[in-house]
Amino acid sequence: MDVPSGYRACVVGLGSMGMGAALSCVKAGIATCGIDLSDARRAEFAAAGAEAVGASVAEFEGEFDAMIVLVVNAAQARMVLLGETGAATKVKKGGAVMVSCTQSAEDAKALAAELEAMGVTMLDAPVSGGAAKAAAGEMTVMASGSQAAFDALAPVLDAVAVKVYNIGPEIGQGAMVKVIHQLLAGVHIAAGAEAMAMAARAGIPLGTMYDVVTNAAGNSWMFENRMKHVVEGDYTPMSAVDIFVKDLGLVTETGRSLKFPLPLASTAFAMFQEASNMGHGSEDDSAVIKTFSGIELPKKEG
Amino acid sequence: MDVPSGYRACVVGLGSMGMGAALSCVKAGIATCGIDLSDARRAEFAAAGAEAVGASVAEFEGEFDAMIVLVVNAAQARMVLLGETGAATKVKKGGAVMVSCTQSAEDAKALAAELEAMGVTMLDAPVSGGAAKAAAGEMTVMASGSQAAFDALAPVLDAVAVKVYNIGPEIGQGAMVKVIHQLLAGVHIAAGAEAMAMAARAGIPLGTMYDVVTNAAGNSWMFENRMKHVVEGDYTPMSAVDIFVKDLGLVTETGRSLKFPLPLASTAFAMFQEASNMGHGSEDDSAVIKTFSGIELPKKEG
Repeated sequence: MDVPSGYRACVVGLGSMGMGAALSCVKAGIATCGIDLSDARRAEFAAAGAEAVGASVAEFEGEFDAMIVLVVNAAQARMVLLGETGAATKVKKGGAVMVSCTQSAEDAKALAAELEAMGVTMLDAPVSGGAAKAAAGEMTVMASGSQAAFDALAPVLDAVAVKVYNIGPEIGQGAMVKVIHQLLAGVHIAAGAEAMAMAARAGIPLGTMYDVVTNAAGNSWMFENRMKHVVEGDYTPMSAVDIFVKDLGLVTETGRSLKFPLPLASTAFAMFQEASNMGHGSEDDSAVIKTFSGIELPKKEG
Repeated sequence: MDVPSGYRACVVGLGSMGMGAALSCVKAGIATCGIDLSDARRAEFAAAGAEAVGASVAEFEGEFDAMIVLVVNAAQARMVLLGETGAATKVKKGGAVMVSCTQSAEDAKALAAELEAMGVTMLDAPVSGGAAKAAAGEMTVMASGSQAAFDALAPVLDAVAVKVYNIGPEIGQGAMVKVIHQLLAGVHIAAGAEAMAMAARAGIPLGTMYDVVTNAAGNSWMFENRMKHVVEGDYTPMSAVDIFVKDLGLVTETGRSLKFPLPLASTAFAMFQEASNMGHGSEDDSAVIKTFSGIELPKKEG
């Protein structure tokens, strides 16, 4: 779509997802500022075509039509957006904030209410797809909110996403869909680890096990993506164990608030928590397989 | 490949998988007999080009180069193959039996030993792919056994499978890989049910939830295939709850014999067992979602 004349965006958080979103906005011809606490990330985005970069919104002139918040959690989103010097103060009248961290529906609702009080419209818009998809402007966005919020953010949604799901008008629905999505993602990684550990225990070559599963009905997106790391013995973090301690923690917390039993997600949460307590929190999330004892796993070559 | 002159095959068990395999053999130009206790199935295969059909191997003249056993479990395989009037007595010297039921590695080894004593070579060769793939001659075979067994069965493997994995020379390895595959398949169905039930509890439209997941990293082959039934409210059995009570039962039994803990598979087994005890054993395996109370699920239209 054509970007309206004078349309300006600000991306808050230039991590792997935020940087991808910011670069996608620049590529789409949107004047885009970037906020991050890291000098290196700011320098990277500045060199890649940012209108301006800063450690806070105070460093920028003027106001923004769109703000994209891609920080780690609800607490960071509140901290960066709210208050007298918060980033939300620089959102133009009629503009909107797309909040894309993974958070509970309650946190999304509370944040929207405080933004509303500042006269700012929020889109509850978690994303999926990983760093590679973000860099390609091909994120999946699962969003809920008012039509006004969708309209105000249309140019940036178009720039960063290959697919935008409109879950409904109610803030919290987007967050809920993302939480349920993470239930599946986390259980699938843990199930992949359980299966591969059992194969190791039974003396089945893990490369063969991987090939069979990825060509049969037992496959999952996460099995295919993460169990490759186990086969290669490479636990360099693409996404860390502690991310799923956080996300499955959010899933079980949501289960409690809905009074909904989560037999599998609770079990998977315990597996990731144990992996973290064993000292593997910063390794790739496939390291949840290290919770199984009495097996020999492939070592990284070279 | 060219079928050797005079090569004859016999398919034991003309259920959805066996019928598919039998028809694929006929299509490949192999003279194929079929055994089943059901008159209707025998008549169906007879009309589709069988050399002959019967309720037991005693009804056929001569001997077979290849026998494919696609019955439900190890007990049925033993019953049909062994003994003085067993089907294995009609396997030609130098021929082999491909045993494709889902069974434990121990049962596969015991069966192979008894066949060996009768002078018959066995391939431990479970299959995956479902009825549609079987009908198209596109099953996935995960096989272990001697090179002689692979060689003797090459024409039928070529006819029925799109991919044959040679797991190794040891009988039991094929069975083990299938058991571990079923761990993933079963956990993925149960996880899909848990996620969709949570979505229902949270008031998320299930069709939307399905679309998001199937286009994101939380997807699995089983989620995409089975949760469609939940969205449509159609529990007509493609594969029944009780099949996974059996298969995950085999998984947990194998875990005990390996002294290997199965946190997720044990939980999923309990969910399928509960669904069966609630009276849903003969419904589609996606009916495991009915173990969650306090939610409203889509009803079948019309």
